[in-house]
Amino acid sequence: MNLIILKKEDFIHRKVVKLKGRRFKHLCKINKIQTNHKLSCGLLNGKTGTGVVTKVSESFLEMRISLDNNPLQPLPLTLILSLPRPKMLKRIIESVTSLGVKKIYLINSWRVEKSYWKSPVLDKKNLEKYMILGLEQSCDTILPQIYQKRFFTQFVKEELPLISKNSMCITAHPKTYRKCPYNINGKTTLVIGPEGGLIDKEIETLENIGFSTFNIGSRILKVETAVTYLISRLFL
Amino acid sequence: MNLIILKKEDFIHRKVVKLKGRRFKHLCKINKIQTNHKLSCGLLNGKTGTGVVTKVSESFLEMRISLDNNPLQPLPLTLILSLPRPKMLKRIIESVTSLGVKKIYLINSWRVEKSYWKSPVLDKKNLEKYMILGLEQSCDTILPQIYQKRFFTQFVKEELPLISKNSMCITAHPKTYRKCPYNINGKTTLVIGPEGGLIDKEIETLENIGFSTFNIGSRILKVETAVTYLISRLFL
Repeated sequence: MNLIILKKEDFIHRKVVKLKGRRFKHLCKINKIQTNHKLSCGLLNGKTGTGVVTKVSESFLEMRISLDNNPLQPLPLTLILSLPRPKMLKRIIESVTSLGVKKIYLINSWRVEKSYWKSPVLDKKNLEKYMILGLEQSCDTILPQIYQKRFFTQFVKEELPLISKNSMCITAHPKTYRKCPYNINGKTTLVIGPEGGLIDKEIETLENIGFSTFNIGSRILKVETAVTYLISRLFL
Repeated sequence: MNLIILKKEDFIHRKVVKLKGRRFKHLCKINKIQTNHKLSCGLLNGKTGTGVVTKVSESFLEMRISLDNNPLQPLPLTLILSLPRPKMLKRIIESVTSLGVKKIYLINSWRVEKSYWKSPVLDKKNLEKYMILGLEQSCDTILPQIYQKRFFTQFVKEELPLISKNSMCITAHPKTYRKCPYNINGKTTLVIGPEGGLIDKEIETLENIGFSTFNIGSRILKVETAVTYLISRLFL
């Protein structure tokens, strides 16, 4: 936890927070906090700064908070991700949040196992938990927005053109000869398929609305590796 | 499993292999193999090619093998990694293998929890298992070499100068102002610290033998994210 994410409900006075539960336990066990310790804090979707511990009890701590710094720059990336298996999804949500992605669409596609859509990981509360882990890791405060789209063709034809407007539109796909560009650093919409890849018809549907298909080198990577790998080289 | 890794002991005739256990079960369950199916195969540390299924029984299959292609290009990277926690180590070994890293030193440093060194994940057989998963994923056959070094200063002063000779020497460290270079594409030795980072004295010891210290941007990443992130931008 490199940054403690505070929520509005943590504040008991204008500049004082009271922490219980996970964050309190982590700060006791790992940071071994005591009165007067200074810790990095940030208000969820707000500014960052410091907290000075004013009280530590058996079950909670209090801190005096001062938040003056703007949050980190977000990446200008919209990530369109075929729903991965739930265990991997947790890690991907955490890692892409730590990398600064702010807009994530989880979509269906032919090779997505239908059972994945029933996973409790997709509950709003759970997704928020993994995003907050990513924010705590990277010292960011702005929660990404995650959308779930269960109809591939409808989503690509009706919504994606608007979502990806004025951005570089990329589909990452192992079975193509063009190598993915790097150092784009402008507004980008990136589609990443499931393990096994998108099927030809899906690639075609994306190409029809202006998505260029690129590979990421001669190696086929797991989705979770590919996501970080692509984000890293697109935004140097 | 994008490539079936064969070992010499799988061969029952000069060009025929017999597979049981994990690979057999995976091929039945996921690939639903039948006689005459053609599958991508590679000999561990050798060439790649195809196998044609000649026999499927309840507990094994046989394939006629033809291996004519050279394995993928390795990355010119030596990775020096502070031993991460075992669960993360598994995934890192798999992912860096899939990315083409062929030389990995797992080292001790101040913030490495001593108990990690007792993990069964570090057994040769287990490490090989995760490397083979990485090879199967990326269609490579060359097994990385993994070395374990439990004395930081001794390793850095006595062995690392030779290991890193004629290579670009980089330490990735969050608390520095210089941004990591990208697109090196030459021989590189990359040191990555543990969660919480290397301590100043360790950074200094590395700088004394010619390692330059760079950050990887304004975000602090988990080790497993940082490893992929760095490899991606160093070798575009």
